[in-house]
Amino acid sequence: MRYAEEVIVLHNREGWEEFASFRTDRILSLYFIASTKVSTIPGISLAGSNPDLTLYTPALDVEYLVLGFPRSLNIIPTTPEGIPTPALLTRVALKISGIPYLVVDCGSFIDPLIPHVDIRGGTVGGRIDIEDALTSDTTFKLFNNSKILGNMVGSNNSLIVVGESMPGGTTTAMAIMEALGYKAVGRVSSASPTNPHKLKKEVFEGAVKRVGKKIPLPNVFEAISHFGDPLHISIAGFLAGALERGARVLLSGGTQMCAVLAIARALGLNLSNKVAVGTTRWVVKDVSSDLLGLVKDIYPEVPIAYVNLDFSTSKYEGLRAYEHGYVKEGVGAGGTLIACTMVREVSIAEIFNAVEEEYERVTNLVRED
Amino acid sequence: MRYAEEVIVLHNREGWEEFASFRTDRILSLYFIASTKVSTIPGISLAGSNPDLTLYTPALDVEYLVLGFPRSLNIIPTTPEGIPTPALLTRVALKISGIPYLVVDCGSFIDPLIPHVDIRGGTVGGRIDIEDALTSDTTFKLFNNSKILGNMVGSNNSLIVVGESMPGGTTTAMAIMEALGYKAVGRVSSASPTNPHKLKKEVFEGAVKRVGKKIPLPNVFEAISHFGDPLHISIAGFLAGALERGARVLLSGGTQMCAVLAIARALGLNLSNKVAVGTTRWVVKDVSSDLLGLVKDIYPEVPIAYVNLDFSTSKYEGLRAYEHGYVKEGVGAGGTLIACTMVREVSIAEIFNAVEEEYERVTNLVRED
Repeated sequence: MRYAEEVIVLHNREGWEEFASFRTDRILSLYFIASTKVSTIPGISLAGSNPDLTLYTPALDVEYLVLGFPRSLNIIPTTPEGIPTPALLTRVALKISGIPYLVVDCGSFIDPLIPHVDIRGGTVGGRIDIEDALTSDTTFKLFNNSKILGNMVGSNNSLIVVGESMPGGTTTAMAIMEALGYKAVGRVSSASPTNPHKLKKEVFEGAVKRVGKKIPLPNVFEAISHFGDPLHISIAGFLAGALERGARVLLSGGTQMCAVLAIARALGLNLSNKVAVGTTRWVVKDVSSDLLGLVKDIYPEVPIAYVNLDFSTSKYEGLRAYEHGYVKEGVGAGGTLIACTMVREVSIAEIFNAVEEEYERVTNLVRED
Repeated sequence: MRYAEEVIVLHNREGWEEFASFRTDRILSLYFIASTKVSTIPGISLAGSNPDLTLYTPALDVEYLVLGFPRSLNIIPTTPEGIPTPALLTRVALKISGIPYLVVDCGSFIDPLIPHVDIRGGTVGGRIDIEDALTSDTTFKLFNNSKILGNMVGSNNSLIVVGESMPGGTTTAMAIMEALGYKAVGRVSSASPTNPHKLKKEVFEGAVKRVGKKIPLPNVFEAISHFGDPLHISIAGFLAGALERGARVLLSGGTQMCAVLAIARALGLNLSNKVAVGTTRWVVKDVSSDLLGLVKDIYPEVPIAYVNLDFSTSKYEGLRAYEHGYVKEGVGAGGTLIACTMVREVSIAEIFNAVEEEYERVTNLVRED
């Protein structure tokens, strides 16, 4: 495999080889965005320079992804320390590869000012410790609309890369997995080097107490309405629709994508040889979370691969910060980079340089304002 | 060429061969929908069972295309005589080929109840004989948003099929071409066997009188704001964006697509070997219009091909009506069928049978209601 050094298979090598044997010309990337008010709980999410700004991050992420600069607010999304969005890596991957892509809004707090598919239920996700995430109607609507979209853009033997941007997403992903019967507390990742497991657990325990039902819940849609968010059910719906058409789907993200696998399993979808998880080295190396264990518990047939990018030697502190546990993944960065190596003979060194160039451009963009 | 009998080149065979030499795996279809109040002028459009219903046709067309049944209203769009929408052919082509596709709303009177990209300026097109089509702001916004969308989904060596649904479109297309300096009065097609050229001319003359400026207008955006509609400028913007990325575009429609060529020419876009017009036999055989002459006048380097489908021997009167000049084309029927023959070895007989089957299904659907 020519991209052996760029992409490393973490789990189920045989499954990955089978998955990656598709015809590389038919690739499409989709970036799903949504908001959950869980991200506004102080300490939950670093995906924004303060908790309230995390609600704007998804729209700003995709505006930057598409245009090279944000439009709704004059702010490139960063952590409170100023480390820029992983959309930077995604943008580089799309630029190098020329992979066509779309943005899907399934519940962003603000409407992104770029062309996008809107499958919104008209609402952001509720703060699950004090309110339901979604009405049942919205949950069904998001699933069904996304499934139709999967039917439309899925095509036989194509590969569809699915990324996401939703601050607070590891917390709701954890809650979804728990509500569906998997041990997930303490196992999800974070954009922070100090993963706030205790706080996430408290949010989930608050939700369990509030809902007052025995978990696991037998009905997946009910589980999502109580404990979920607009994002994961939408991606699961899309997956269902795209698989119906014979497409393969690379779920591009960290432990959040395990919530999608849990929903898919609960719905009885057959993912074997058709779905893989693609992520970054930083998620895989993260000792505070357990992507591999979650996949093994939920859907062991699903392979995991990661892009072997290392920023230790970067001249930029904001990129070296990835090696210290900041950001790690998001906006489909890992999977889009993997897809990039599949459509073009591109070395990690080339990607590394392109990321540094883009980082410099973005930093100057911020300084000019 | 294996599809020689299915697809016939009407103009610029060499250009068509070059155009059709792309890698067939990378195909995406987009269907642009919009409304212009011109369609509500009695006698202008047969794309709806009465003039007011023509405003609903674009949304109903794409709902039917995606779902197999309309959703906003319980009506399959038909002519006043009950001949169903050409989306029937498009649906068959998409089903046979598995080509992934999207719907783009650039100004539909109602929001289609299926996942779609919304690049609306927030308004349908005005009735140009009595009011401007669009504000300049909206014209620019539609162009720019569509261009961004073209940048997103266009990719090198891919083929993008672009179809449309906008009743009244041949009239505004005619007005656009005239406003940009081409003779178009009496040369555009119609969904009717008795092309209402006189009425179309009156609408245009009313617009010229109302605007009170010397035509041709030197500024293409001004021409669109006064004489156009939301559709053609959006498709032109998309074309600009997709060509920037190295995509090839098959403009799928009849004489309306000549308005897109006129806008592209005015903007200085280079379409050679990158853009073709794909249509149906019924447009080409239509003696009341002049697709070939319009293309030769506006952009002679652009090849024209048509799908060689003939309904003379159909068992259904509603399909035989195509041979008597009804409907002819729409919702990218011709071009999508051409693209279908490019991705799959499919005979005209197979397409013919599949269309009859779908016609039967749709007819029963209507009867059941």
